[in-house]
Amino acid sequence: MAKLIRRTSKAAGLPPGTLIHIGKKKIEKPRIKIMNYDESNCEEREIENVKECYDFRDTGGVTWINLDGIHQINILEQIGNCFGLHPLVMEDILNTEQRPKIDDLGNYIFIVSKMLYFDRANHIESEQVSLILGRKFVISFQEREGDVFNSIRERISKGKGRIRKMGPDYLAYSLLDAVVDHYFVMLENLGSKIEEIEDELVSNPTTETMNRIHKLKRQIILLRKSIWPLREVIGIMEREQSQLIQESTLIYLRDIHDHIIRVIDTIETYREMLSGMVDIYLSSISNKMNQVMRVLTIISTVFIPLTFIAGIYGMNFKYMPELEWQFSYPLILASMLIAGSLMLYYFRRKNWL
Amino acid sequence: MAKLIRRTSKAAGLPPGTLIHIGKKKIEKPRIKIMNYDESNCEEREIENVKECYDFRDTGGVTWINLDGIHQINILEQIGNCFGLHPLVMEDILNTEQRPKIDDLGNYIFIVSKMLYFDRANHIESEQVSLILGRKFVISFQEREGDVFNSIRERISKGKGRIRKMGPDYLAYSLLDAVVDHYFVMLENLGSKIEEIEDELVSNPTTETMNRIHKLKRQIILLRKSIWPLREVIGIMEREQSQLIQESTLIYLRDIHDHIIRVIDTIETYREMLSGMVDIYLSSISNKMNQVMRVLTIISTVFIPLTFIAGIYGMNFKYMPELEWQFSYPLILASMLIAGSLMLYYFRRKNWL
Amino acid sequence: MAKLIRRTSKAAGLPPGTLIHIGKKKIEKPRIKIMNYDESNCEEREIENVKECYDFRDTGGVTWINLDGIHQINILEQIGNCFGLHPLVMEDILNTEQRPKIDDLGNYIFIVSKMLYFDRANHIESEQVSLILGRKFVISFQEREGDVFNSIRERISKGKGRIRKMGPDYLAYSLLDAVVDHYFVMLENLGSKIEEIEDELVSNPTTETMNRIHKLKRQIILLRKSIWPLREVIGIMEREQSQLIQESTLIYLRDIHDHIIRVIDTIETYREMLSGMVDIYLSSISNKMNQVMRVLTIISTVFIPLTFIAGIYGMNFKYMPELEWQFSYPLILASMLIAGSLMLYYFRRKNWL
Amino acid sequence: MAKLIRRTSKAAGLPPGTLIHIGKKKIEKPRIKIMNYDESNCEEREIENVKECYDFRDTGGVTWINLDGIHQINILEQIGNCFGLHPLVMEDILNTEQRPKIDDLGNYIFIVSKMLYFDRANHIESEQVSLILGRKFVISFQEREGDVFNSIRERISKGKGRIRKMGPDYLAYSLLDAVVDHYFVMLENLGSKIEEIEDELVSNPTTETMNRIHKLKRQIILLRKSIWPLREVIGIMEREQSQLIQESTLIYLRDIHDHIIRVIDTIETYREMLSGMVDIYLSSISNKMNQVMRVLTIISTVFIPLTFIAGIYGMNFKYMPELEWQFSYPLILASMLIAGSLMLYYFRRKNWL
Amino acid sequence: MAKLIRRTSKAAGLPPGTLIHIGKKKIEKPRIKIMNYDESNCEEREIENVKECYDFRDTGGVTWINLDGIHQINILEQIGNCFGLHPLVMEDILNTEQRPKIDDLGNYIFIVSKMLYFDRANHIESEQVSLILGRKFVISFQEREGDVFNSIRERISKGKGRIRKMGPDYLAYSLLDAVVDHYFVMLENLGSKIEEIEDELVSNPTTETMNRIHKLKRQIILLRKSIWPLREVIGIMEREQSQLIQESTLIYLRDIHDHIIRVIDTIETYREMLSGMVDIYLSSISNKMNQVMRVLTIISTVFIPLTFIAGIYGMNFKYMPELEWQFSYPLILASMLIAGSLMLYYFRRKNWL
Repeated sequence: MAKLIRRTSKAAGLPPGTLIHIGKKKIEKPRIKIMNYDESNCEEREIENVKECYDFRDTGGVTWINLDGIHQINILEQIGNCFGLHPLVMEDILNTEQRPKIDDLGNYIFIVSKMLYFDRANHIESEQVSLILGRKFVISFQEREGDVFNSIRERISKGKGRIRKMGPDYLAYSLLDAVVDHYFVMLENLGSKIEEIEDELVSNPTTETMNRIHKLKRQIILLRKSIWPLREVIGIMEREQSQLIQESTLIYLRDIHDHIIRVIDTIETYREMLSGMVDIYLSSISNKMNQVMRVLTIISTVFIPLTFIAGIYGMNFKYMPELEWQFSYPLILASMLIAGSLMLYYFRRKNWL
Repeated sequence: MAKLIRRTSKAAGLPPGTLIHIGKKKIEKPRIKIMNYDESNCEEREIENVKECYDFRDTGGVTWINLDGIHQINILEQIGNCFGLHPLVMEDILNTEQRPKIDDLGNYIFIVSKMLYFDRANHIESEQVSLILGRKFVISFQEREGDVFNSIRERISKGKGRIRKMGPDYLAYSLLDAVVDHYFVMLENLGSKIEEIEDELVSNPTTETMNRIHKLKRQIILLRKSIWPLREVIGIMEREQSQLIQESTLIYLRDIHDHIIRVIDTIETYREMLSGMVDIYLSSISNKMNQVMRVLTIISTVFIPLTFIAGIYGMNFKYMPELEWQFSYPLILASMLIAGSLMLYYFRRKNWL
Repeated sequence: MAKLIRRTSKAAGLPPGTLIHIGKKKIEKPRIKIMNYDESNCEEREIENVKECYDFRDTGGVTWINLDGIHQINILEQIGNCFGLHPLVMEDILNTEQRPKIDDLGNYIFIVSKMLYFDRANHIESEQVSLILGRKFVISFQEREGDVFNSIRERISKGKGRIRKMGPDYLAYSLLDAVVDHYFVMLENLGSKIEEIEDELVSNPTTETMNRIHKLKRQIILLRKSIWPLREVIGIMEREQSQLIQESTLIYLRDIHDHIIRVIDTIETYREMLSGMVDIYLSSISNKMNQVMRVLTIISTVFIPLTFIAGIYGMNFKYMPELEWQFSYPLILASMLIAGSLMLYYFRRKNWL
Repeated sequence: MAKLIRRTSKAAGLPPGTLIHIGKKKIEKPRIKIMNYDESNCEEREIENVKECYDFRDTGGVTWINLDGIHQINILEQIGNCFGLHPLVMEDILNTEQRPKIDDLGNYIFIVSKMLYFDRANHIESEQVSLILGRKFVISFQEREGDVFNSIRERISKGKGRIRKMGPDYLAYSLLDAVVDHYFVMLENLGSKIEEIEDELVSNPTTETMNRIHKLKRQIILLRKSIWPLREVIGIMEREQSQLIQESTLIYLRDIHDHIIRVIDTIETYREMLSGMVDIYLSSISNKMNQVMRVLTIISTVFIPLTFIAGIYGMNFKYMPELEWQFSYPLILASMLIAGSLMLYYFRRKNWL
Repeated sequence: MAKLIRRTSKAAGLPPGTLIHIGKKKIEKPRIKIMNYDESNCEEREIENVKECYDFRDTGGVTWINLDGIHQINILEQIGNCFGLHPLVMEDILNTEQRPKIDDLGNYIFIVSKMLYFDRANHIESEQVSLILGRKFVISFQEREGDVFNSIRERISKGKGRIRKMGPDYLAYSLLDAVVDHYFVMLENLGSKIEEIEDELVSNPTTETMNRIHKLKRQIILLRKSIWPLREVIGIMEREQSQLIQESTLIYLRDIHDHIIRVIDTIETYREMLSGMVDIYLSSISNKMNQVMRVLTIISTVFIPLTFIAGIYGMNFKYMPELEWQFSYPLILASMLIAGSLMLYYFRRKNWL
């Protein structure tokens, strides 16, 4: 199951700013892709040696450096040196257990967000996506190669939309937007699971249903934990007029803000629905028990007294005059039949049948 | 059942501002109705060609353009071009999964609200109503033809009330007011359902009752999700002194604000009542079970010991002196009667009968 | 039962400011009482014709106009015209489903509050009391004749206390204070009901107890809905330094504020207590069930094995040597007695007896 | 049980500022003790005639007047006149149902706090302690003689600590501090009760346990209601720079603020623990029921089929060949033994034994 | 079990600023270690006589005085005199029941935090760590010797990282950071316990499981109580621009702030998970009960009617023609077999088997 609890104490006791990778190694070899573009030109390159980054420091246009795989500390260190990143920022990029946050460090803004996806076993996996938004560049750090930024790469290389005309702030926005857009895919998936369980609850609730509800609840908790702080991140970007963010980008930030609020709204709705479903489940268990008890009670109540009567006439007393009478037996049988029928009639009137 | 979860991921990955219709196509052919009025004159027209909008751009008086059916993107695009709407605004109009919101874009204010109604199967349907409030015009976008704006259209054409004397801000207020007024109709409907279920709970709660409570809870959640943000929308309109809203309209906004708070108050009250009803339902199940168990226990407790006694005298031992005595049988019967009566007396005293 | 849900949709679709009475007609003929007083004089009159109001518009001293019964729209309209009330204010006075609120309209302040009382069937009835506080007058609107303002009328006519020396703001305060003071009477009534139920819960909880808890919960919800917003109303009166409220009255407003907070505190306490009582009720049902089950189990566990033994010796096999022995019967009886006693001892040790 | 609900409606309908004692008369005869001290001198006196207060109005040094027993209105009135207290303040002192609050009336500050203690029956009693902090005096009002201020009296008379060097604000702080310190005693008492119940829950939960949990919950609610507002009281004293409070006293107020927050923290912790204990209690009832049911089921399941077999061979058919065989009886007995053992083995495997 | 409730009333009634140790004596003899360092030099010493502190008051460089064991009041008093600490600060250091807090006293900042660790019995122990941050010194007070500051001591003595280049504010930050880092170790431990219980819940929930959940809940409550206020402490350090904290340290405070928020996030997540687990536990009890009841019902329902039939033919009536027929017995046996099979088939269809 997707872990809510991960090992993050590895760094406890180390001095702040110590570079140590916390998280799973999700890719074998880190890959660095660089795009450099302005309105008219666009260059795309995958570099082998991290030193080549230096070439892109002072070009015209916007530079986007994307690093897939962050576990090789020396690569990160070189990028950090090249663009003058603070040791604490480097530490946070390496620690994949960050919560989404934003830090304005003057020359650049540091943003942490969480990419969420279902793995093959249908568990939610969370991947940390860190962004550095500088005056002329954006650096993005992913734990592994993902396809979520591909459409942006394509829009840049083909010059679709307004992205080529805008600055690095718009690029950063686009990357965040891609992350947030993916949340809707997650929500739909969860939503249809919830609907399935709801149908199950009405038709035939089993212990498995309760386990599925619980598992979904856990996933919702994880989702909320990853997404909730992002709202504040975008809010801060909107409000705190950084020089790195142009006014024309603000409307886009507002748009992404709306999206996140919609995501959070939906998550809260799911939570409430799952709570309601636990109530239904418990009441359906109680109902089933009621039904079982009723069957037992009806059978027992009808047959125990009759068996008692049979027991009476099974006694071996010498002087039991009824035993001698000729019509005792059919009379007894008939009266048993009547008694049983009366019982059943009583249960029917009580709505137990 | 009214879906809480809809497909909204269709647009994931597309560049921002891409026009794509998200939602169901609820009407075959979009219809555009235009009203142009001032204190003395009023013109009403249904246009075929969206280009005719341009004629109304610079007329005197207030222009109200109403579009029923938003799925034809080209129509929307032309309206957008005509009145200079931002691509993100266009995108939001097309995405019917917006939450209510307000955006002040300087030249115009963009408002999203939700029209709620019961469909034929008695499920809550939610329809998005978007408004553009400009300096001299209001544009309203609905997903399908509705009758909720008819009374306003009539008030304008017949010059009832003060609407003809006021500006477009008052028109926008009137449209929102019509939407909010309709919520009270919804609430009444839900309220009488709640009362029905409450009566059912007292008289004869069944599994169906629980399902109805759950369904109502879901509808309340949907309602709240649609209405709650509207409160903030109106609050922002009141506070943020836009030039587009005249001071004389403010008191009307305050009025609508009061209405929304009343709606929200009532929704919260309903939520609390439904929660209380789940408690009652669960306790009534437990009570029923108690009753069933009591019947079983009384019958078993009375007859099992008696059957045991009958069993004793049904044994075939050779030397059982009692069997030979003449009055054993009636004595045994009498003592059984007494024992049973004592049992019943005991249960009566314990209030189980 | 006191309705939480009332019909308020009657006005849906009408233009704002349309005068329409929403609520029950609680009195046959509206009555208008007018008091005019200053420090030395006091005149009290009941007028037949609403036009006489005009006489009191420009007198010296403070004028208090009280209208019992608001369903005759023309009377209200004339009062409104006389004192220049805004159509929306008039509409709110007529709609008895308002929540408590305050509106400062410059020349006068409009306050809505809720008078609560128990009707004969011991249900909470809510009556709307609207106040208009002007520069030299106070107008109060009640749905029916009530006795809650009598003591104030008496204080004015007899010159008790400082009311004759103070302005209309003090009069308005006194009226609100009378409304709030009455809440304490309500709370006491509810409090003693809660204590009764609590005693019932300990001594003998029945299904009826649960219904009473539920009914009380509903009444508490209604109370809270009516009182909670009043807190803000008084808060606004205190804070927003209206010219209509003199500084010497502020301390009195603070006092009423304290009272309302105490009322709300108590309501919240009641809510918590009622929630706790549901827990107790449910646990007492479970306990009862446990007790029933125990009786059943003890009886069954003692007698079923014994009956089995009796059944063994009731078999008709030809070769059952024990049957022939002389002391089989007493031996079997004795061993049955011992087995039964051991069972009972076991149950005693398990604390089931 | 300590009442959460008291009669406070006695004053409803009276004009504001009417002096009327609301609460129980807890002491026969009010006692007035006066201390007057400065750094070098200290005079302590118990006066009989309230008029003697006037002597202390204009002395040098700090005057502390303590009144035990507030039910004699005329005494209060004279003190009020002597120090110029507002009628509403007098009313609040007399109404022992106030919630803790602070009012700055310019010349003096009026503070209401709640002294809590356990009475002999171990119920929480709440006593109102009102303070008037003037420029050179402090007046404290208690409902009955208490010993909680004795240590302060001693510190003053013996000149311990810095109290003699400080002004009346420090004295007022000391009195409040004594009240708050006493809360910790309450908390400890409640805490050890909670621990007792917790042990009981693990070892042997009974219906009595649930009642004790409920009683504690009620006491916690009462405590919270009395203490929570005090936090705000001290907060206001700290923030609203009254001339009556010297800057050197602020650090002491901060200290008392910390204490109250600790008290509130602990109360909240208790509440959470008690909620958890209800869960445990309910689950333990369910477990007990499970256990009872299991015993019943095992006994029934083992013996009912065996009794059936015995019943078969108790039938009186003429042609039942088995009855004639010589080894039928031991064979049947043996097979019954085996069947019973298999059943028990099955239950053991299902962990029911 | 780790106590949530400790004896803190010892000081009730004493004058404020009275030095009294509240808490357990956790170490025999207090130890004082002093470090004095600047960028180039570092001196480390353990002193016997507390007077030696005075030597370090006016040295160049940063002085760190660490006191392990705070129960000897005279030692504390001398340190307090040496560095001019306020009596209330001294009192708070001695009272180990403080909640985390920060007080800015102008010349120095006083910070209280909580070190948490598991003792040998796996209970959470909480130790108070107080810090005094002065212009040129930091004093830390611990209840006993701990190893959590060792790594900082090493970093200073070996000159690792930037600690030697920074001021006392960075040292104070480092100490707090060490405390907070240790929380992650706690969380991991708790997290793996939660996962264990979750597995247990799915495989085989027992009463013990519920006890463990309850125990964890308690520990989480304790954790939250100790950590939650620390968030505000750091927040205040960040915001309230004290002269004692240099701007270059602010980014480190922001970092620690992030860590605490992550800790709190995780605690809240744990709380939610534990709540969900109680639900699962309760539903699993209900399910088990259902299963038990079903077995009982099936056995009873199959065999009670059959036993009744056997009872019929065990009656001793003289005239029971069936008894004489030759094939009655096998016929009855066969019909019993069929009846039983039909029952089982019915139960199978009802999914009870």
